[in-house]
Amino acid sequence: MLARLDRAPKDACLNDLADRLESRTGEILEANASDLAAGREAGLDEALIDRLAMTQARIAGMATGVREVAQLPDPVGEVVETSTLQNGLEVSKQRVPIGVIGIVYEARPNVTVDAAALCLKSGNAVVLRGSSAAEASNAVLAGLVVESLREAGIPETAVSPLSGGGHEQLRELATQEGLVDLIIPRGGDGLKNALKEVARVPVMYAAAGNCHVYVHEDADLQMAQRIAYNAKVQRPGVCNAAETLLVHRAAAGALLPALLQQLSDAGVELVGDERARDNAADVPVGPASAEDWDTEYHGLKMAVGVVDSLFAAVDHVNRHGSGHSEAIVTSSNEAANEFTEAVDAAAVYVNASTRFTDGYEFGMGAEIGNSTQKLHARGPIGLRELTTTKYIVRGSGQVRE
Amino acid sequence: MLARLDRAPKDACLNDLADRLESRTGEILEANASDLAAGREAGLDEALIDRLAMTQARIAGMATGVREVAQLPDPVGEVVETSTLQNGLEVSKQRVPIGVIGIVYEARPNVTVDAAALCLKSGNAVVLRGSSAAEASNAVLAGLVVESLREAGIPETAVSPLSGGGHEQLRELATQEGLVDLIIPRGGDGLKNALKEVARVPVMYAAAGNCHVYVHEDADLQMAQRIAYNAKVQRPGVCNAAETLLVHRAAAGALLPALLQQLSDAGVELVGDERARDNAADVPVGPASAEDWDTEYHGLKMAVGVVDSLFAAVDHVNRHGSGHSEAIVTSSNEAANEFTEAVDAAAVYVNASTRFTDGYEFGMGAEIGNSTQKLHARGPIGLRELTTTKYIVRGSGQVRE
Repeated sequence: MLARLDRAPKDACLNDLADRLESRTGEILEANASDLAAGREAGLDEALIDRLAMTQARIAGMATGVREVAQLPDPVGEVVETSTLQNGLEVSKQRVPIGVIGIVYEARPNVTVDAAALCLKSGNAVVLRGSSAAEASNAVLAGLVVESLREAGIPETAVSPLSGGGHEQLRELATQEGLVDLIIPRGGDGLKNALKEVARVPVMYAAAGNCHVYVHEDADLQMAQRIAYNAKVQRPGVCNAAETLLVHRAAAGALLPALLQQLSDAGVELVGDERARDNAADVPVGPASAEDWDTEYHGLKMAVGVVDSLFAAVDHVNRHGSGHSEAIVTSSNEAANEFTEAVDAAAVYVNASTRFTDGYEFGMGAEIGNSTQKLHARGPIGLRELTTTKYIVRGSGQVRE
Repeated sequence: MLARLDRAPKDACLNDLADRLESRTGEILEANASDLAAGREAGLDEALIDRLAMTQARIAGMATGVREVAQLPDPVGEVVETSTLQNGLEVSKQRVPIGVIGIVYEARPNVTVDAAALCLKSGNAVVLRGSSAAEASNAVLAGLVVESLREAGIPETAVSPLSGGGHEQLRELATQEGLVDLIIPRGGDGLKNALKEVARVPVMYAAAGNCHVYVHEDADLQMAQRIAYNAKVQRPGVCNAAETLLVHRAAAGALLPALLQQLSDAGVELVGDERARDNAADVPVGPASAEDWDTEYHGLKMAVGVVDSLFAAVDHVNRHGSGHSEAIVTSSNEAANEFTEAVDAAAVYVNASTRFTDGYEFGMGAEIGNSTQKLHARGPIGLRELTTTKYIVRGSGQVRE
């Protein structure tokens, strides 16, 4: 039974998997190349191609992530809190695995490895339903996982890759109450809505990100430019990339011409409200539609707005944001505190890029996704988020009066 | 905004409410008497009548619970963990309110007070949808809550009692995505299934309890008798009462005659498997049907089974239990550890009655219910379980490489 597996075989399996990822990089890249070729032929957009693409560096990063998971403490059995009640009962709240977790994901093949590693380490069995766009890559990666399970003497049923696909399969998986304890979708709104329609099993939404960078009137403008540029451009296809830049009107004139020029030079298509366009100097900025403020572009496009106050910025963020990652650039503690308290999101940043919301960056090893919902887990979903708890209560014959 | 309310007005409101519960006990009892009379006339069963009934002692207990909630630390802003990343980012994970919580409950009027107190203290707005069977009691109690909010200068919108009822209202509440963040039903399977059909808002099931007491072969039999009797008889209408007694075959002959006699004398209707009936001496024990093992009786009835081993007991508990509260009576650490590890439930007891699974008993002040699901909260739902978290990340211009 996976839930009661000792730490040693789990870690041995993970270290073996990391080795295999490195020694079999060629095989992985070959399979990935065929997925990429098929994807380009099928006309997948660039954000999807970016998610699908494996490189030697990304594979090395996966191996590092898996080794880090092996080094992390085993969450199973971790004592969350203890107390001795007045009647002498000793209460201990401990982490235990959730059970069987279904991961439903789109093009990213690295999810195959991250999900298997995190679920195994946390004592959960995992059902992997990847995208047909990554079929060849996923097959090779899942094959390596199975080899490592076998090597470590862990039942292969710990990791079950589903092949095939389609909505009927999704419905079947999402209605296995009592057999599947949790489903984590990792993909866009289409997948999310498809699941909402059919799921009777609990679902933890690793959802989309409509993230903002707000530049307050007292911001260090060089820092603001660096952060806004990084949040948009460093990897635009991912959910913690920024989609909207908000600038206090007092900073717009000094910040926007240079920043928008830099963004435009990097190939970012810009749209903005009237005041943003008025402050754009020679940079081409199209008019932003109402929908732009609610859109996750998944690519090199950004909406730019000028606001009258911190309050207006917070209001915009809470109205349009998806509750993922939000940043303020400011030199004032007061503004920073107001923003972090008033903004309703999984992660709120002061003077840093939104791009850091990530289990690996946060020191959690790897992650299965970022939760933007409020229950159970909010933010990166790592090992602890894949456990539940059990109260163990020891007595000497206590009964209730 | 309720989420950012200081601790002082919240606690002042709660202490004022406790005072009102005491000084207005007469009013509450009067309203409750009319609900009880109507309930008896409508033929409510005794378990429901027990849940509905208020007494001076129960009202005093509610007041004590509310004062304890006031004394508990404010969960809002509590720092769950902090870390400084290698790049200098300071990450702090803090508790924040969930938002708006809907509580849907059956006959128990005390839920009105417990839910309002816990939601207020945790910074959440609450929508209360009680049962029509407790309409008069709930109206008086909600009125006292509103008086206390007013007295403390807190917007009355913090607590919204719904009147009326019916399935259409339930559907309306359960589909307010974006307005209602969480629904907690507190009631039986009918309510639970009705919600499962319609809910699009997240639901935390404060579910039923099919709890077991297992007496191992090496148990102190006097202790076993005391625990089994207490778990069944002390308050049979509630979810942490035991429904099934399992006894190791080596202990059956010595334990069962006296224990079953005591249960029978207390008015407990007994059913059992063949070996339990064989060991019942002169106590009348009917044959247990397959359904008995899966039934929460909500009253003075108990199923009794004899098992061949600890393993068989664990298997029975995991197959038939509802994951609420399970107890073993044993003098061996080895058996205790095996049972606590292998049984899959919110609370697992060694040598104590199952009746202790309760937020008040666990030192959490009061509770809104006991979760038997695995996500977000498992066991008593108290203040912390009514919060989510937010990562606050402070930097000095960090961007992602």
